[in-house]
Amino acid sequence: MDSAVYSGECRMRRYDNRGKARVSMLIQDVFSTYKDDLLAVEKCINDNVISEIKLIPEIAHHLIDSGGKRFRPLLLLICSRLCGYQGESRFPMATVMEYIHTATLLHDDVIDQADIRRGKDSANKIFGNSVSILVGDFLCFKAFMLMSAIGNNDIFGLVSKMGNIMSEGEVFQLTKCGDINMTREDYLGIIEKKTAVLISAACATGAILGSASPDKVDALSNFGKNAGMAFQITDDILDYTAEGREFGKSIGKDLEEGKITLPFIFALKQSTEEEKNRMKEIITSKNSSGEAALEVRKFIEKYEGLDLSRYRASGYIKEAKHQLDVFDDGAEKNHLMTVADYILSRKV
Amino acid sequence: MDSAVYSGECRMRRYDNRGKARVSMLIQDVFSTYKDDLLAVEKCINDNVISEIKLIPEIAHHLIDSGGKRFRPLLLLICSRLCGYQGESRFPMATVMEYIHTATLLHDDVIDQADIRRGKDSANKIFGNSVSILVGDFLCFKAFMLMSAIGNNDIFGLVSKMGNIMSEGEVFQLTKCGDINMTREDYLGIIEKKTAVLISAACATGAILGSASPDKVDALSNFGKNAGMAFQITDDILDYTAEGREFGKSIGKDLEEGKITLPFIFALKQSTEEEKNRMKEIITSKNSSGEAALEVRKFIEKYEGLDLSRYRASGYIKEAKHQLDVFDDGAEKNHLMTVADYILSRKV
Repeated sequence: MDSAVYSGECRMRRYDNRGKARVSMLIQDVFSTYKDDLLAVEKCINDNVISEIKLIPEIAHHLIDSGGKRFRPLLLLICSRLCGYQGESRFPMATVMEYIHTATLLHDDVIDQADIRRGKDSANKIFGNSVSILVGDFLCFKAFMLMSAIGNNDIFGLVSKMGNIMSEGEVFQLTKCGDINMTREDYLGIIEKKTAVLISAACATGAILGSASPDKVDALSNFGKNAGMAFQITDDILDYTAEGREFGKSIGKDLEEGKITLPFIFALKQSTEEEKNRMKEIITSKNSSGEAALEVRKFIEKYEGLDLSRYRASGYIKEAKHQLDVFDDGAEKNHLMTVADYILSRKV
Repeated sequence: MDSAVYSGECRMRRYDNRGKARVSMLIQDVFSTYKDDLLAVEKCINDNVISEIKLIPEIAHHLIDSGGKRFRPLLLLICSRLCGYQGESRFPMATVMEYIHTATLLHDDVIDQADIRRGKDSANKIFGNSVSILVGDFLCFKAFMLMSAIGNNDIFGLVSKMGNIMSEGEVFQLTKCGDINMTREDYLGIIEKKTAVLISAACATGAILGSASPDKVDALSNFGKNAGMAFQITDDILDYTAEGREFGKSIGKDLEEGKITLPFIFALKQSTEEEKNRMKEIITSKNSSGEAALEVRKFIEKYEGLDLSRYRASGYIKEAKHQLDVFDDGAEKNHLMTVADYILSRKV
């Protein structure tokens, strides 16, 4: 796992519904609490990336070992424990989430012709597009193999639907590529499909493993969905603000690829016709490096696009936390609160 | 469905183990027998390619409606009926097989940079690589959604494993691309993984739906595997022999892509060192059009590469039929025999 995840400060004092101060916690404390579980997930991830075709584990490991935070597995583990489940199936199910996440990254990087992923050369750059596509497929089917061994049809249905929606989100995003008239609703629809449903499914799966009541499954599903929305908005903010090496991607890459995200949409909405035309020119020319990138950044800053996006992300986190009201206060609920706060404060 | 499938003559008089002549049958008679079932499958295929993202059904239909023979659905329907199952689940399960088959075609055409599929411009050529990859993903997840609605964990496990092996086969094929030292065993390993396991799974699924005994599930699984081997060998023979328009692909495309198939391997094994070097030169230069293509074809003919491949394919068909010994004689067994014979005789 990436040690960078532990570097961000995220200590906050929170208050429960009755105004009682809860113990403040750092995100690294949460990771520490689940250290043994995460190690078991890590073992499961590694044990199942096996194939007699040696190139497959080589490519899969290139991405799997590249410092992913295991954010989705962590959420699944917390939600399982919150719902009283500590059985063995949580490890392969956390692996399922990480495999499908990895598979989408492999396919996305081919689609985006990305050169960098998590600060390293991307798999498609090193090994080529063809095997990146196929190893993505391999991991998806392996995820379903793991689920068939668990044999829970509710989870199977949830994850199948999730993957289907994720593909829709990616296609939707492509159809909106470079479209300066893309609305906030379009953007939110895309990120819900491409990002939030997976985080939602990870949380809901933990609840289903714990045989939680339908309202608790829904609550954790909604917690994950809202947290996922905030996660992607933060990601899109970081695309404009983070230092390249720290964030692990080229900066301004989204716009270079024609991906119009929330900070830009907020600014566009308030801009003059002239500014809008100039931005359209930049996007159409796919010239977002150097001076053009700086121009876009200044444009977004002028209209407070980043802060407006941060505010929107914080709204999703507030709603995510609100979903946890159905649960009694306790350690695991506190862990979810900490993860939620971390999403807003993360620098990587 | 493609009417071309009905054009090939395939009437053969067959004898059962006791030397008794069975009623001869044409492949089109088999398709006619299952006409209503196939229409129900067609409806299921169409009803489930829906998405609020309009581009998805458009791309999916481009391939789905392009004259596929519905060979895998047909086999599943026959095997279901052979095992006494005529319930509703056979239609979505046949759809699952067709969706996964279609998804692999979408991904393969991106990988092979194919321009033509089933005589039409390929999806990647018209719509681009990115959406072709994503619509492939969409169809795969949709297939799993259909399975989750059926809720048979044995089938779920079988199909997940099948998809995983298919990805392995495709990667294996890529690693052997342009490798003149590729052995017959390598080739057979590749086609078993990339083609035969899907046809095998279609047959086995029919048996599982019919709650057949394990020996009968195995028998139909092996029937499908052997039939699938013969199917791919025939496909690879047709790459050298069929007329472009009839077969729906560019001819000699395999070699152009560096894909070394059985007819070529048989010829290479008997060739002089000089000939081998010349062939290596042609493959390396990726010059298999015009004169070079003719040279390769002559080389293969000199060493009877096509007939040796046909003989090998017929061996698989013989073994496929042998697997049916566990079943009493009857209409459905006869249908499978007819399909098996058709595989060898097909011109498209």
